[in-house]
Amino acid sequence: MKNSILASTSTLFGEEYLAYLQTELKAFFKEVAEIVFIPYARPGGISHEAYTQKVRAVFAQMGIGVKGLHEFENPVAALNSAKALFTGGGNTFLLVKQLHELGLMSVLKAAVEKGVPYLGTSAGSNIGGVNMQTTNDMPIVYPPSFETMGLVPFNLNAHYLDPDPSSTHNGETRETRIKEFHVFNDIPVVGLREGSWIRIKGTEIST
Amino acid sequence: MKNSILASTSTLFGEEYLAYLQTELKAFFKEVAEIVFIPYARPGGISHEAYTQKVRAVFAQMGIGVKGLHEFENPVAALNSAKALFTGGGNTFLLVKQLHELGLMSVLKAAVEKGVPYLGTSAGSNIGGVNMQTTNDMPIVYPPSFETMGLVPFNLNAHYLDPDPSSTHNGETRETRIKEFHVFNDIPVVGLREGSWIRIKGTEIST
Repeated sequence: MKNSILASTSTLFGEEYLAYLQTELKAFFKEVAEIVFIPYARPGGISHEAYTQKVRAVFAQMGIGVKGLHEFENPVAALNSAKALFTGGGNTFLLVKQLHELGLMSVLKAAVEKGVPYLGTSAGSNIGGVNMQTTNDMPIVYPPSFETMGLVPFNLNAHYLDPDPSSTHNGETRETRIKEFHVFNDIPVVGLREGSWIRIKGTEIST
Repeated sequence: MKNSILASTSTLFGEEYLAYLQTELKAFFKEVAEIVFIPYARPGGISHEAYTQKVRAVFAQMGIGVKGLHEFENPVAALNSAKALFTGGGNTFLLVKQLHELGLMSVLKAAVEKGVPYLGTSAGSNIGGVNMQTTNDMPIVYPPSFETMGLVPFNLNAHYLDPDPSSTHNGETRETRIKEFHVFNDIPVVGLREGSWIRIKGTEIST
């Protein structure tokens, strides 16, 4: 039975990393001694090691260990035997490229569908959608495919921002971009405003 | 001799389409009776016909005719015989996909390098860079490649926005995104603020 949290972001303005999710995460990871962390999205280009260290420090406060997926010699086996999974935010193109090139996207999907608790934030949530085509990220690398896990029958747009009626900037609003997506695609899109998340329990999806 | 204008945008806030470029464009297209317009970026999903009609109305005021590239049975021949070219803004992924799939990216590049006056705005400017990997657009379609014309030895970021120090939103700033690009790529990036453009004359590149 699927058991996942897909969150808009890791950090609310002025708060500590994952602070707004603390209560939720304590319940979610109650039975868990160790999380396998997927650091591939590398926010700001941070190294896998440094990113994992940051996450480790936060989960240590909850008494939960963290191992980075990059630390395993065999990442397929690591995903298959993980007791809990967390994919952090960063660049979705980078994350998706890495998961596809290492043959891990389908392995990750299978693990999550089998019921391994999965937490995603930002880019890590985007990959829970049907494809990554409603990301806000810059295409800094070229992934072999835009397909993602499809844990939910829709796409996600993390950090969703309502249109600002006072803006004098001519870049498209988020709403305009998603409407453009819908000219060429039928997949519904759920915008996740900062501080919101989607909870998946089996076939039940709630916010 | 290359002769191009790569502009940040088509329209400044509160102004008419191309108004801020009028003086520049009158000089740039002085000798030109007809422009071939590339409407593939389809802003807001607008049709090729409607987009071309919008552009035609503006150039009519300058006494210049406009034909949409989609109107030609043979777009390769159309690009090869065009006296002037304009690629409008919209979605860069859509534009680049279409140009590659129709085999037109290299044909367009050759025409511009031969000296056919080329105007790009927004997505139409992005394709003047080495690749489209510093676009702000949403990946609503999957292009077979991110390579673009490389009229200049750098990438462009249209609608460049300076970081807003008062922002409480946790989406990355433009600067952060471009820095992430540079973790994985050596290509320099020129941010084009609204209302600015790059002028290319042969080997001379100025703003």
